[in-house]
Amino acid sequence: MKKHIVVQKFGGSSVANLDRIKVVADRIIESKKSDNNLVVVVSALGDTTDELEEMAFKLCPTPPDREMDLLMSTGEQISSALLAMAIKARGHDAIAFTGPQVGISTDSAHTKARVISIESPRIRKAHSRNKIVIVAGYQGLSPDGEITTLGRGGSDLTAVALAVALKAKVCEIFTDVTGIFTTDPRVVKSARKIKTITFEEMLEMASLGAQVMQARSIEVAKRFNMPIHVRSSFVKEEGTMIVKANPKIEDVAVRGVTTNASEAKITITAVPDKAGIAARIFTEISQKDVNVDIIVQNVSQSGLTDISFTVPRKELTKALAASQAIAKKINAGQVSSDKTVARVSIVGSGMRSHRGIAAKMFETLAKLKINIDMISTSEISVSCIIEEKHAKKATEALHTVFGLGNTK
Amino acid sequence: MKKHIVVQKFGGSSVANLDRIKVVADRIIESKKSDNNLVVVVSALGDTTDELEEMAFKLCPTPPDREMDLLMSTGEQISSALLAMAIKARGHDAIAFTGPQVGISTDSAHTKARVISIESPRIRKAHSRNKIVIVAGYQGLSPDGEITTLGRGGSDLTAVALAVALKAKVCEIFTDVTGIFTTDPRVVKSARKIKTITFEEMLEMASLGAQVMQARSIEVAKRFNMPIHVRSSFVKEEGTMIVKANPKIEDVAVRGVTTNASEAKITITAVPDKAGIAARIFTEISQKDVNVDIIVQNVSQSGLTDISFTVPRKELTKALAASQAIAKKINAGQVSSDKTVARVSIVGSGMRSHRGIAAKMFETLAKLKINIDMISTSEISVSCIIEEKHAKKATEALHTVFGLGNTK
Repeated sequence: MKKHIVVQKFGGSSVANLDRIKVVADRIIESKKSDNNLVVVVSALGDTTDELEEMAFKLCPTPPDREMDLLMSTGEQISSALLAMAIKARGHDAIAFTGPQVGISTDSAHTKARVISIESPRIRKAHSRNKIVIVAGYQGLSPDGEITTLGRGGSDLTAVALAVALKAKVCEIFTDVTGIFTTDPRVVKSARKIKTITFEEMLEMASLGAQVMQARSIEVAKRFNMPIHVRSSFVKEEGTMIVKANPKIEDVAVRGVTTNASEAKITITAVPDKAGIAARIFTEISQKDVNVDIIVQNVSQSGLTDISFTVPRKELTKALAASQAIAKKINAGQVSSDKTVARVSIVGSGMRSHRGIAAKMFETLAKLKINIDMISTSEISVSCIIEEKHAKKATEALHTVFGLGNTK
Repeated sequence: MKKHIVVQKFGGSSVANLDRIKVVADRIIESKKSDNNLVVVVSALGDTTDELEEMAFKLCPTPPDREMDLLMSTGEQISSALLAMAIKARGHDAIAFTGPQVGISTDSAHTKARVISIESPRIRKAHSRNKIVIVAGYQGLSPDGEITTLGRGGSDLTAVALAVALKAKVCEIFTDVTGIFTTDPRVVKSARKIKTITFEEMLEMASLGAQVMQARSIEVAKRFNMPIHVRSSFVKEEGTMIVKANPKIEDVAVRGVTTNASEAKITITAVPDKAGIAARIFTEISQKDVNVDIIVQNVSQSGLTDISFTVPRKELTKALAASQAIAKKINAGQVSSDKTVARVSIVGSGMRSHRGIAAKMFETLAKLKINIDMISTSEISVSCIIEEKHAKKATEALHTVFGLGNTK
């Protein structure tokens, strides 16, 4: 019988120190017993990535991207070698590879490279000798032979891309939570682990603040229909399956509620209401590397309009400076900002077939006398900007109203 | 005019922390002003190598050599990237490479690989663009595409091998001392920096305890006649040139005095004096990974002989156990040991032409009433094993008697 290939990925918190590496080694060996061929992708130990980055910035305010990748890729090289050793100490055979060694080819966009192809004869050879294959996550090789890295969270992408290339049965993402939850269990006690979620719901939740998996890796899994199993490194129980939409998945209107309390709002008042003015504003702001989230433009009165938008709170200072500069150039009025806003969102592909979901959300917030400042919708989500102090109350109410806490 | 290539190597203590990396960057930029093409080989930051090794052994008592190299090579990859960044921050252009990236090919003997060849088109290309080339020391690539390391002190070898391959004008070894001294300046106050020393003298001194440079790298420099300049990373003065023997070098009988106070002596008494018995003893002992230094076999009396030998003090326990086992097998007598011995040596190629050097050494020790326990000679050195408590006095006296302290 042909063996299945299973790809497993262990994040930085799972290999934070030598004791955890030993726990992970035990976990991997147990998986090996089900007689699959294993490929284990590993992140850097705990805070290594932050420490390396800090050293670089202390030496050079704008470190060259190429050398940055040379530096940062060592974190995963170290953890992969150590994990192979821990497995060997337990009497099993493992072999560790860097990204380049297993043929992960990327483009040349250092620090945020994209995977182009994977040619992995060395993995197949190692499997034919019954070895557990450990791969350093987050890295690859550019066409001109340079070491590249795939950006923060890039080990997820390594795992999914390898799973796709090797036609794995499943890609398991081991992390410090037991799965994807209907909402943040640290905030809402009745939060429940989701058994199955679709790729597009997961993508939407990731973009709205759920930080369990890197969004790009979910996109790749969706494109190639590679099932993902998000589960705990420490607790032995089933986690959450991320799969293609299919009739077997429980039909609910709303799959989850996400909260993002690190937003800030900027308003530019009395903007001359001319064609192309919004484009001009947001082009200039994005050139300052500010990520604008929700944009609302008020109805124009007497040729003037107010434009409000939200940005990550940590980018507020530069966003504000950019806004004031552009406001002056286009003869707009005052620029004001508000640091105490939060975004609450509901996500679910069921919204396509269930009607009145958005209305139910607004009604729920209204009953709590929570004022909705801005609204943004996508095909499978609705987001409201509200005062930050109401965020927890709003999240709890929405979680209850959409029946997320009381189903099994 | 064709530019010269100069290879510089900075050891771990020179790049022990970020501040020292900045000092090294300044130093390199100053060298660049003399308009040479620079190749800078760098060791791992301070204690990184020890720390990585410690992690490995904590996870696995006998870590696989292949993964050990994958792990250990990251230390130099990190320091090379950081050094390039520090140079860039100072407005100069540098590019960092791993050993494999500059085509350092080795055999497959992991953890102690030998350099086979160096093909370095990337270095020439970088030089043609006026970049300072930084190379991670201590590492290479095996024929089957594996990362290898060259053993402790391997960065010296990387530097010398690159200098030979690139036909460099000189290989500069920057370290935490200002050069090679006539004897250890921490022990003897009148110790003097040697201006010029021959490869073979340096090799002899290295094998007798001078730890400034790795012996293998001196051998390679000797074979290819690559001049080496040992100098300080921190003090701006000329260091010691290591060169081929030539008539311009100051003609002295003795170039230096070395002391090794970390020896121990083992004596196996009443060994049956049969052909092949010494071979049998030392084959068995070397199989226990003990490095035997000096061997003395006493004149045989009535078919029995005493065999004494010295070993590094830290290997005494296993050497003693091995000796007791073999003594039993060959029906020898008691095995005794002495942990309080030291080796004092004089080194100089002038011994070939100057006569009576060994006699003068013995006479000097005799005058001080220092008993000589064992004697060993090579073409250009004489070593005596004496009681450790006399080592300093003996070294000072020999240093004076051979005129090492009073010349300029």
